[in-house]
Amino acid sequence: MVVAVLGCGYWGPNLIRNFLQRPEVEAVFACDPDERRLEMVRARFRGVRICSVAEQLLRDPAIDAVAIATPVALHYELARTALRHGKHVLVEKPLTQSTQHATELIALSEHVGRVLMVDHTFLFTDAVQKLKELITAGELGELLYFDSVRANLGLFQPDVNVIWDLASHDASILHYLVELPPIAVSAVGARHYYELENLAYVTVYYENSFLAHFHVNWLSPVKLRTICIGGSRRMAIYDDMETSEKLRIYDRGVEICSKEGEEQLRVQYRAGQMYAPALRNQEALERVVSHFLECIRTGCRPISDGYAGRAVVAILEAAEQSLRAQGAPIRLSPEYVAPVPNGAP
Amino acid sequence: MVVAVLGCGYWGPNLIRNFLQRPEVEAVFACDPDERRLEMVRARFRGVRICSVAEQLLRDPAIDAVAIATPVALHYELARTALRHGKHVLVEKPLTQSTQHATELIALSEHVGRVLMVDHTFLFTDAVQKLKELITAGELGELLYFDSVRANLGLFQPDVNVIWDLASHDASILHYLVELPPIAVSAVGARHYYELENLAYVTVYYENSFLAHFHVNWLSPVKLRTICIGGSRRMAIYDDMETSEKLRIYDRGVEICSKEGEEQLRVQYRAGQMYAPALRNQEALERVVSHFLECIRTGCRPISDGYAGRAVVAILEAAEQSLRAQGAPIRLSPEYVAPVPNGAP
Amino acid sequence: MVVAVLGCGYWGPNLIRNFLQRPEVEAVFACDPDERRLEMVRARFRGVRICSVAEQLLRDPAIDAVAIATPVALHYELARTALRHGKHVLVEKPLTQSTQHATELIALSEHVGRVLMVDHTFLFTDAVQKLKELITAGELGELLYFDSVRANLGLFQPDVNVIWDLASHDASILHYLVELPPIAVSAVGARHYYELENLAYVTVYYENSFLAHFHVNWLSPVKLRTICIGGSRRMAIYDDMETSEKLRIYDRGVEICSKEGEEQLRVQYRAGQMYAPALRNQEALERVVSHFLECIRTGCRPISDGYAGRAVVAILEAAEQSLRAQGAPIRLSPEYVAPVPNGAP
Amino acid sequence: MVVAVLGCGYWGPNLIRNFLQRPEVEAVFACDPDERRLEMVRARFRGVRICSVAEQLLRDPAIDAVAIATPVALHYELARTALRHGKHVLVEKPLTQSTQHATELIALSEHVGRVLMVDHTFLFTDAVQKLKELITAGELGELLYFDSVRANLGLFQPDVNVIWDLASHDASILHYLVELPPIAVSAVGARHYYELENLAYVTVYYENSFLAHFHVNWLSPVKLRTICIGGSRRMAIYDDMETSEKLRIYDRGVEICSKEGEEQLRVQYRAGQMYAPALRNQEALERVVSHFLECIRTGCRPISDGYAGRAVVAILEAAEQSLRAQGAPIRLSPEYVAPVPNGAP
Repeated sequence: MVVAVLGCGYWGPNLIRNFLQRPEVEAVFACDPDERRLEMVRARFRGVRICSVAEQLLRDPAIDAVAIATPVALHYELARTALRHGKHVLVEKPLTQSTQHATELIALSEHVGRVLMVDHTFLFTDAVQKLKELITAGELGELLYFDSVRANLGLFQPDVNVIWDLASHDASILHYLVELPPIAVSAVGARHYYELENLAYVTVYYENSFLAHFHVNWLSPVKLRTICIGGSRRMAIYDDMETSEKLRIYDRGVEICSKEGEEQLRVQYRAGQMYAPALRNQEALERVVSHFLECIRTGCRPISDGYAGRAVVAILEAAEQSLRAQGAPIRLSPEYVAPVPNGAP
Repeated sequence: MVVAVLGCGYWGPNLIRNFLQRPEVEAVFACDPDERRLEMVRARFRGVRICSVAEQLLRDPAIDAVAIATPVALHYELARTALRHGKHVLVEKPLTQSTQHATELIALSEHVGRVLMVDHTFLFTDAVQKLKELITAGELGELLYFDSVRANLGLFQPDVNVIWDLASHDASILHYLVELPPIAVSAVGARHYYELENLAYVTVYYENSFLAHFHVNWLSPVKLRTICIGGSRRMAIYDDMETSEKLRIYDRGVEICSKEGEEQLRVQYRAGQMYAPALRNQEALERVVSHFLECIRTGCRPISDGYAGRAVVAILEAAEQSLRAQGAPIRLSPEYVAPVPNGAP
Repeated sequence: MVVAVLGCGYWGPNLIRNFLQRPEVEAVFACDPDERRLEMVRARFRGVRICSVAEQLLRDPAIDAVAIATPVALHYELARTALRHGKHVLVEKPLTQSTQHATELIALSEHVGRVLMVDHTFLFTDAVQKLKELITAGELGELLYFDSVRANLGLFQPDVNVIWDLASHDASILHYLVELPPIAVSAVGARHYYELENLAYVTVYYENSFLAHFHVNWLSPVKLRTICIGGSRRMAIYDDMETSEKLRIYDRGVEICSKEGEEQLRVQYRAGQMYAPALRNQEALERVVSHFLECIRTGCRPISDGYAGRAVVAILEAAEQSLRAQGAPIRLSPEYVAPVPNGAP
Repeated sequence: MVVAVLGCGYWGPNLIRNFLQRPEVEAVFACDPDERRLEMVRARFRGVRICSVAEQLLRDPAIDAVAIATPVALHYELARTALRHGKHVLVEKPLTQSTQHATELIALSEHVGRVLMVDHTFLFTDAVQKLKELITAGELGELLYFDSVRANLGLFQPDVNVIWDLASHDASILHYLVELPPIAVSAVGARHYYELENLAYVTVYYENSFLAHFHVNWLSPVKLRTICIGGSRRMAIYDDMETSEKLRIYDRGVEICSKEGEEQLRVQYRAGQMYAPALRNQEALERVVSHFLECIRTGCRPISDGYAGRAVVAILEAAEQSLRAQGAPIRLSPEYVAPVPNGAP
């Protein structure tokens, strides 16, 4: 198996490092138009081969798979070309800038029979895997809300706003964990420095009373990475900034005890124990790369396949439209955001 | 000075305790229609006099001032009657259920020349006072955003939703600290147990790029009380759950260094020191009560007067309307939300 | 039942408040030679009766029980007199300044058939009760160590050093939870401001490899209240500064897998889940007072009886001697520190 | 410059990585008797040259400098041989197993005119550098105590107890920051699994009232890395487990206001602001390696030279003796523990 990694900015080198560690990968090519970046990659990973022209690698029949870690605007073009040349493709999040492009890539990957996977890294963390397991087993009961905060100082992106950058993580986790079809999205944001939003609040609406909300922020004095999932039986907090006990499950909740016709509201609060399941400390990207290679080998559909990628893009696209429409809710196409069936990498 | 406290539920006894501690208060009456509550108050505060009929106290010429800690729905009626009988009035937050009622109370209090004060307790904490001082002195620079989270398990209120209950705190702090006129409010929420929202997100819009957002939640597994204020020079986090260092000031921020015409975005991140100013530990309600008595004595206008109370009600009222209109932004009447002039209790 | 509280400094008013709340207590007397303190007590607790001469109360046949919250130096004299006059006695920690005095009080209380109880408040917290339950049930396995940190800024005591003030808590918890007989104590300390130690480290030795250690400190910039108990099956951390989840149980440990004769050490680390049992939030002192009154009524021996009080004094006394002997270990008389039999308030 | 790293266990690869990143290093040799480790190093660092016989490298005239990351028992022999062959030497902490050996290495390095440096990594952290700066500038006032806790689960060392493993860090930081000569050391510990202590408390005594204490623990359910330094003007807490604000300076303290002859103790507590200085996030080992190479180039004496290394060994050696003598204080030879003169890497 020969792999090419396109884009050697922030994330590319992590992909390179992980592909280099896989025994089934015979060679890794690194590609970037910026020669200095290529030089840094060469210095750091002595075995890697470098190339500054993506087109060349995409046409090279010796290359089996391509990982695309370029600016988002290039994802669609590069993935399309790679698929057309029969490569398996792993694309960084978000998959594309539009659901239309995502739809095309899905169709193309099915047509050519190649793997199309999105690097929704967080799905491959132990915390999210454990949450999936607990939710599937009914441990949280009926899901009531999903609230996430993803804030830090920087990195301001030159090409996409904070929603496309940070909320893509939350949308992918939401879509993976919550098997309910969202129906609309609204978003508000603020631009303090240039023409892109650096702070935003995104709401995802569902048919029932479930509600999801993301707070994403490039202008926070402290780094926050928190997801709280409220369930009728238990509630979970996933705090990725904790060095241990990242995931905590609370046996807490509420029961309304008033009988019908009673005037007074009687509520009982359950404040039982909290526990933090033991989590391994494996690097999520190692699992992403391993899952991608396994899907290539077995022909299985990836956990974060094109459909999952499109569902995330659908939410981001709607959020963007809502931002432009003063926060008006934008309806989602049901076929784009159908929940993922149960499964685990 | 003789004071009557109407309502002996959760908050009333705190008012009674604080009035009893003031040397200028000669007698305190406690009033509640529920005899058991009166009995508990009598047992706990041996000097207090009790009465189960508010009307009686409101008419009693021996009583100089009234503190109203009843369900919100009764605030307007009781305050109006008290003012008409020439009493000074301290009302729990929120002042009323409508801006119209608030406007009437303001006019009435001015007509009869009596103090009308709202118990916006948080304004009287050392943390908020210090924040006011820092903002007024320009220490935070231009204000960019206000983000608050107020979450815990319960208490579900039988008569008002989580916005009227919890966001009233945030709205009062926002109105006090940020001297910019908000122009609109939107809100989304979820009802999981009965006909009132137990979880809500409120956005307050301003003419410039400043944005305020409240997350209020009665169904959180953990108690959170956090306000983050982003400024161009510094940022502040007020975490009321900390036992010490509740307020932290971060010398952190962002500067855009790209020159016009430059293609690439160049951003510099400033990550300087953090400091936590020393705060005293005085009970905020002690200051509320002391400020109320002082305003009665001196004729000064309270920090949290009827106008401040109405501004808060205006935000809550608009949030409620937005909830009913699927999150559509509701414009605020400028005269209701004019910023408070600088001042300190 | 009529109760007299001797000493109205820091802790006395808490005792008064709690005795006043008990239905079986008909009257509470407060006693202090300082008239200002008496006045404050009278103002705060309107029903309480005051008296500035302890002797008078101790002789008063109308008084059934006495709680002694004076400086430590007076405990012995007052308790002795009270017992001689047939009163039941609750003494603040530490019971006395010497094991000899403690022994006398034990003998006297048995002779007159009156309750002698020490206010080892922490034993009555939910956290320590839960720990007792877990240890008794073998949940922690074999106990390996007890490490506590009790640090804050102040209050410098004029009459006793930090060991007598703070370590009395740790010694009482240790003696209650760990049913092993300690054999010796050593202590080192530092005096930075006057002739009494404001910082000390106390080690309690046992026959087997179990070890206990207290760090007590009046000169810490932050308040710390942590006890860690290592067991072969699980470990517990009780952090009293947490607002919730004060007690956490960790399924963590170590197993040595080397076989005999093997050269290399092979160790396996178990890092399983952590859980925080649900704890109620009852005031510990409320339980102390209730337990004292119950022991008076039923004739049962208190959890923290004279023997427990003497065991604590034995540890403090030995620590004091070790301090004076440059940290040399001081042996404990086995009869003074015999472990408490299982039991719960 | 050609460098050989001896020992490719836990720490060796970090040295290799850092030497490889230095432009002045032309080649890096890795050496370990264990072929599997060599293979892992070869796979990870493609440019590195490997060798399984240390002796061979130590004699190779092409090699300029040697970094020794083997088990402690081999430090002395390998460093001696390296120095005799004219190599510059960087040794992992602790330098040797005895002060006698350390003294020999110091003399030898001076004789051959080669650099002898100990990898006291923590001295090169931003936090310790900032502490040094603050202490030197008198910001903390007179130093009163040094309290450290270094606890986690594992790694049980096969050859040295927890004092030689973990307390070496604390001793090196103490010796660097506190310019007072310690006079004696005592230690107590517990062995729960095999013949070496896995838990220990070490006290370092000084002539004045300054006191230092280390709690080191391989059997803690949570990872703790805390150093508290009490000063008469300010106090500092360095918590290495914090992801940001690792160092906090508290303007807190105590003043005794009693006048001589006064009976009552009057104490004033100062509880001023806390601040967390901005720290860079450079890897400390990068600075260690850079400082070592710079000392080779310039002939300057390293911050953590042989004398600093010996001072640490002196403390550990005395602690070990005290452990064997039931905690009796062991006097330190003044010439071994003379404080380091001011300086910064």
